[in-house]
Amino acid sequence: MAGNGKTIFSLILSGNIPSHKIYEDDSVYAFLDINPLSRGHTLVIPKEESPTMDCLSEKAAASLGQVLPKICRAIMKITGANDYNIIQNNGENAGQTVPYLHFHIIPKYPESNHSFIWEPNSIDHSDATELSKAILKELE
Amino acid sequence: MAGNGKTIFSLILSGNIPSHKIYEDDSVYAFLDINPLSRGHTLVIPKEESPTMDCLSEKAAASLGQVLPKICRAIMKITGANDYNIIQNNGENAGQTVPYLHFHIIPKYPESNHSFIWEPNSIDHSDATELSKAILKELE
Repeated sequence: MAGNGKTIFSLILSGNIPSHKIYEDDSVYAFLDINPLSRGHTLVIPKEESPTMDCLSEKAAASLGQVLPKICRAIMKITGANDYNIIQNNGENAGQTVPYLHFHIIPKYPESNHSFIWEPNSIDHSDATELSKAILKELE
Repeated sequence: MAGNGKTIFSLILSGNIPSHKIYEDDSVYAFLDINPLSRGHTLVIPKEESPTMDCLSEKAAASLGQVLPKICRAIMKITGANDYNIIQNNGENAGQTVPYLHFHIIPKYPESNHSFIWEPNSIDHSDATELSKAILKELE
């Protein structure tokens, strides 16, 4: 889907679909999610089109990261929320519904019911030693 | 908790607690979560100490964002996972257990059982118009 300019977010960026914009600069656009989990639920997208985080350029990723603190501060200030989740899903099996990279910023109010099914395991240190070495080497 | 250098992540950064490191540069450190939701579950933290995203400097946030694509690529390549979730919780009520900003990168395998309780509402366009205007103004 990347590169064909036809996801709903591409159409929002090009102005063909309206959105409740909360922020825009040369490389980032942010707007309210039309199916919010809570009031102020925001989507932050890079203008560089990419389906997932692993495909995004370092430059666009830096610009995207840079604006997160101030966007979070503004959402918290205006909504009055004290807590929030940032979520970015990659791939359909990970819950991604629009194949255009997007960060969710989701205010968590005392009455919010969004949450995670989070059932951690204990790490296998022997496997983790091998795995971390392999990833570290890949990143060198 | 911020600034006292005593969270477990501060102790990992200072080398007082061991970790399965997968990446390090001047401003970012990444290591395997000791209580993983899936194999390769990684934590990415800024070296600049901050409890939550809204408190992080723009410079540190840009550095943190910049490394996400290559770290995701390396984790996917080495683990063989095709899908993954990036999660960053802010505040105890949002599920944050260590008060030091951290991104989770969680590979999602076909057999993975981590997921979200995600029950979206339809947006109230009248409220959203007011809300987006107020946040936009705050960010100007």
